[in-house]
Amino acid sequence: MEQRQEPRRRTGGRSARVVRDVLKATLDELSRSGFTALTFEAVAARASVSRTTVHRRWPSKQELVRAALLCLAEVQPTARDTGTLRGDLVEFIRIRVGLEGQRERFAGLLRANMTEVLDPELMALGRLVEAKLDQPIVSAVDRGIARGELPPGTDPRLIVAPVFMTLAFRVFVQRDDLDPGFAEQLVDVVLAGARTGAAVRRACQAP
Amino acid sequence: MEQRQEPRRRTGGRSARVVRDVLKATLDELSRSGFTALTFEAVAARASVSRTTVHRRWPSKQELVRAALLCLAEVQPTARDTGTLRGDLVEFIRIRVGLEGQRERFAGLLRANMTEVLDPELMALGRLVEAKLDQPIVSAVDRGIARGELPPGTDPRLIVAPVFMTLAFRVFVQRDDLDPGFAEQLVDVVLAGARTGAAVRRACQAP
Repeated sequence: MEQRQEPRRRTGGRSARVVRDVLKATLDELSRSGFTALTFEAVAARASVSRTTVHRRWPSKQELVRAALLCLAEVQPTARDTGTLRGDLVEFIRIRVGLEGQRERFAGLLRANMTEVLDPELMALGRLVEAKLDQPIVSAVDRGIARGELPPGTDPRLIVAPVFMTLAFRVFVQRDDLDPGFAEQLVDVVLAGARTGAAVRRACQAP
Repeated sequence: MEQRQEPRRRTGGRSARVVRDVLKATLDELSRSGFTALTFEAVAARASVSRTTVHRRWPSKQELVRAALLCLAEVQPTARDTGTLRGDLVEFIRIRVGLEGQRERFAGLLRANMTEVLDPELMALGRLVEAKLDQPIVSAVDRGIARGELPPGTDPRLIVAPVFMTLAFRVFVQRDDLDPGFAEQLVDVVLAGARTGAAVRRACQAP
């Protein structure tokens, strides 16, 4: 469940392991305490390395958090290509919303995002990470359009948002369990709507 | 914008005003500080009454918060009946997600809900308040079904959730501005899907 790739592959075993452990510890601390309360000491302790080891590579808290957030998108488990858009979306739901470990982490990061006024640079980084996290789902929608499952010009945001934000709200914010029957019917409603052409990008909207 | 009804109508002017001010102050404090950090002192100060006045009527913090949350659903601005389900949903979006004052309050309450492990009684109360808040929207969907805009047996949750949780996630959690063009097309996608019968309650699901 917690299979992770190293954020940057290095040949050196220990160095790569330290980077991976520190960035994972940073994400854990960030989702537990938020940005303001996050300390080098807590990250170092959680990663079982010295404070100096952390500080040498990432001199500021901003840099450390930036590296950890950029790594988050890369270590996501990948969904297999099921051959249908419906199948792919159900698979992404399982991976993004259904896994226990993911749930805790995402809920914590969202809480940090809601609670704190981050500096503009980190806010922009948050948007970038969200976009990177959504990219594989957007690609699955694009594959569905290419296969003719949805009309050309369909806006992937109008598929991704109502499925994943709705479930994220229920699971991460309202702390409900994921109801697979509800989730699958939600996918069916959104796809049925999109098949009618209702999700085709409108000329009058911003691109 | 902040038109509010008294939670319980009383003939006595001052008494009713005190109840209203204290419950409003409780909601403000709750959305600002959360449940754990909420104090009688802060509520009393914000409502410009004495701590004793608050304590006499609501002996415990649980009782005070319960009264305030139950009042929240009652003081919501009401959406006018536009005569179409699409019009009603757009009107509810404006009221629930679009108003500046509402946004701050709901974001704060969601943050409190995400951050704290509330006691089971308050958790149950939160669910009750959510259900009461959604009730006018569910009724609008039911009116649409009765008018033949959607097939009989349509599950209102499959309309309300993808529209309002998606927008709540964007606005309250991700702190994006409400994009009216996106919101209206989201309504169109969900309604188009529901018109195909995809949102009709399935026999195999829990009722």
